[in-house]
Amino acid sequence: MQYKKLLNRIHEIQDLRKATRVLTWDREVIMAKGGNADRTHQITTLQRLSHTLYTSDEMGTLIEAAANELNGVNYQSSEASLIRFLRRDYARARRLPSEFVSKASDINNDATEAWKQARERDDFSLFRPWLERVVEIEQEKAELLGFIDEPYDALLEIHEPGTSTAEVRTLFEKTKAELKPLYEAVLARRDWVDDRFLRQAFDVDKQKAFARYLAEAVGYDFDRGHLATAVHPFSTSLSRNDVRITTRYSPNYLCPSMFATLHEAGHAIYVQNVHPRLTRTPLAKETSAALDESQSRMFENFVGRSKGFWQVHLPRLQALFPGQLGKVTTDQFYRAVNKVQPNFIRVEADELTYNLHIILRFEIEQSLLNGTLQAADLPLAWNEKMEGLIGLLPPTDSEGCLQDIHWTLVGFGYFPTYALGNLYAAQFFQAVKKQIPQIETELAQGNIDSLLFWLRDNIHQYGRMFAPAEIIQQATGAPLSQEAFVKYAKAKFSEVYGL
Amino acid sequence: MQYKKLLNRIHEIQDLRKATRVLTWDREVIMAKGGNADRTHQITTLQRLSHTLYTSDEMGTLIEAAANELNGVNYQSSEASLIRFLRRDYARARRLPSEFVSKASDINNDATEAWKQARERDDFSLFRPWLERVVEIEQEKAELLGFIDEPYDALLEIHEPGTSTAEVRTLFEKTKAELKPLYEAVLARRDWVDDRFLRQAFDVDKQKAFARYLAEAVGYDFDRGHLATAVHPFSTSLSRNDVRITTRYSPNYLCPSMFATLHEAGHAIYVQNVHPRLTRTPLAKETSAALDESQSRMFENFVGRSKGFWQVHLPRLQALFPGQLGKVTTDQFYRAVNKVQPNFIRVEADELTYNLHIILRFEIEQSLLNGTLQAADLPLAWNEKMEGLIGLLPPTDSEGCLQDIHWTLVGFGYFPTYALGNLYAAQFFQAVKKQIPQIETELAQGNIDSLLFWLRDNIHQYGRMFAPAEIIQQATGAPLSQEAFVKYAKAKFSEVYGL
Repeated sequence: MQYKKLLNRIHEIQDLRKATRVLTWDREVIMAKGGNADRTHQITTLQRLSHTLYTSDEMGTLIEAAANELNGVNYQSSEASLIRFLRRDYARARRLPSEFVSKASDINNDATEAWKQARERDDFSLFRPWLERVVEIEQEKAELLGFIDEPYDALLEIHEPGTSTAEVRTLFEKTKAELKPLYEAVLARRDWVDDRFLRQAFDVDKQKAFARYLAEAVGYDFDRGHLATAVHPFSTSLSRNDVRITTRYSPNYLCPSMFATLHEAGHAIYVQNVHPRLTRTPLAKETSAALDESQSRMFENFVGRSKGFWQVHLPRLQALFPGQLGKVTTDQFYRAVNKVQPNFIRVEADELTYNLHIILRFEIEQSLLNGTLQAADLPLAWNEKMEGLIGLLPPTDSEGCLQDIHWTLVGFGYFPTYALGNLYAAQFFQAVKKQIPQIETELAQGNIDSLLFWLRDNIHQYGRMFAPAEIIQQATGAPLSQEAFVKYAKAKFSEVYGL
Repeated sequence: MQYKKLLNRIHEIQDLRKATRVLTWDREVIMAKGGNADRTHQITTLQRLSHTLYTSDEMGTLIEAAANELNGVNYQSSEASLIRFLRRDYARARRLPSEFVSKASDINNDATEAWKQARERDDFSLFRPWLERVVEIEQEKAELLGFIDEPYDALLEIHEPGTSTAEVRTLFEKTKAELKPLYEAVLARRDWVDDRFLRQAFDVDKQKAFARYLAEAVGYDFDRGHLATAVHPFSTSLSRNDVRITTRYSPNYLCPSMFATLHEAGHAIYVQNVHPRLTRTPLAKETSAALDESQSRMFENFVGRSKGFWQVHLPRLQALFPGQLGKVTTDQFYRAVNKVQPNFIRVEADELTYNLHIILRFEIEQSLLNGTLQAADLPLAWNEKMEGLIGLLPPTDSEGCLQDIHWTLVGFGYFPTYALGNLYAAQFFQAVKKQIPQIETELAQGNIDSLLFWLRDNIHQYGRMFAPAEIIQQATGAPLSQEAFVKYAKAKFSEVYGL
């Protein structure tokens, strides 16, 4: 009875939140620019209503009454999981007063505008004062949320519940120590791989057909989704049964559409496979940003950049583009899509370099937050680290410390989840190979089902019922480590580069 | 201060209502079928929230406090208009208890399902019991809303504020008396017009390009809208600055896409041209269903089926379809798109027959409501009237009394607004021609601006600030009459059919 009452209120709030997402998706994909001001009002109103309902005293009472009623119910049950989640999440939401939320939102908007200008004019000084305010408000947020060891923990907790800065630091140190020598060995043979055949003219309508084919091939359910075009690809869940993906098409380069599609399909498949019992609750969602990223990387890289995958799917692509790809072998194609290309830009980084880009940002974020690095000194610090880690000195700040939107306030603590996602994915994939020995043969035959079932049973179905650490322990028998990723990267890039 | 408070609340409610429309548009145009159940929850939640806010005691207090504060303000002002509108609309909303609204909604859903089955199997008996319940609930609604002369007045008032059943009856009687002989004269020469060249294979992508061209040609603003495809074309306003249209494409018949596009563009242009001051209020909308229809018919028929329009636009269409239309003259084209084709189906009716279809439904609706016609006798009554008015006996009920969805409860009182819209459009167009003598020359040169300005200044800008009777009196100097339409129809069809 009490739980039912709580659930009714939660459903109402989730409906509002998901409606807000429909409005946002539509704004990004469909709406003409003239609708922007009114749409912003609509989104703001819906957000205010759901926030008011969620942070009310009444909600606290509903949670505790339901918790009392359920006292002693199995930890594994969706009911117990919802109570656990709500207690934590409600407490956090209440710790941020609405004046703080609205101040943060204003700074975010202004900082985003300043960042755009600074990037366009390649003038860091335009962004510097806003970065200072962003750092201040991140510091304030950490204080409001509370922490035991260090302020960064409070921010990381938002995206990776139960994961400490110290743990991430250790993982990243070990990763860096292993990947840097590998990266340098690869660089010494950088001309070993030829990917020029990927950089020709490719008809966009045919690319669209192939993107759809790829998404279906990895198990994305078009009866409960939609594939659209966006400048910056993203996926969004408008409900567990309407999880949409977007991709982008370059008329002269085949990779962006293929790998953005597989990446976003990975995110979407996670939510499409959450257990139906969790529908219309906040549990019908990936359990953390890193777990979410682990699934996008699973399909983009571990599946989508494997040789077996292209054994079965390259012929289809060749049939669409016989002139451009007719004579390419599977091996050539596999190596080309895995070419390591040192680059200033994170979002264009290959699988090997990507983590180094993230580690750089993780280190800088911490220094900004604890005050050992001043905003004014960011360009210098960035460039030094870039040279040290990736061996490149960005010619401009736009290609350096101004490249990402994140520090206009998506929230400090988010960046590390990208690299953690890669580590999680590798460890999951290693477990899959161990538990299903024939998996690579199946994938090379175009049979994705065993992998999908494993992911659904071990990860997807649970949504946010359990913490990331619980999920990986249960699924792989061990806590998260960098070992599987390092092993995978060494094997793959040694093969591709004949090391 | 009080008015500002009222406005804030109204903005919030409008944001919720418009958000609901975004969710509905997306469901019709984009969403995969799997999302349906969750989307229904989202829509229901948003509707309940906006309904609760709108019908609260607090809203009544806000309205009256603002009215007090504004006491004596100019009748013509948007402030006074909003108070007038809200007093009337709030009182009506409060007269329908939420149990009634939810009962009506349940009957609507069940009746719609029954109607679909009945239509599919061509078996009226499956729909009969539901039609009885629909009639009952329409009677109950009329009682709840209240009326002076007859129950139908209460239902008509919802769609045509300030218009009585008696007035409509008189207008329709006169219209019928004039149009029937004209219709019969045309029928006697039914082979006079050849439209076979419109019924060939036309590439749908080219039709899409032309639909977009047509919408732009009549002044639809794509920076504040969007054109999509739908089985049953509709337009919807997601805000004054985001008014969307849909159309449908037949691969073997050119008319549906062209005229549905012009029709929906007409609806949309009305709302796009509402004064910006009315944004985020319920006044940013067409003032009545008939006025709304008058604008769709203005662009579909008075502009879009005129000879001058095709003088300027036919060459563009011929360039797209040289094989099919290269040799067609403007005169042949003009006559073909005005061919009168007796047909059982309202939505396929030509401009001359259309009003007769509506008059039939208006008469039957009244008899059902006042109990002189029993639901069981509908098929017989329908067929008798059909023969008498249009000279055709529908071979099946699916092509007869089961053809429209309206009697599953869109609401009695809506049908007559379609024909009233035609009468309004004719009277407006007559006034335009009188006030801007060169208008037809301008339209034949592809210059739509004078017409758009006139419509904006006399109709569109006001939104729902004034009643339909006020609008037409001010714009044309006279109350609504059938005369302009009859004159227009006589002139046009005499020309087309050489009478």
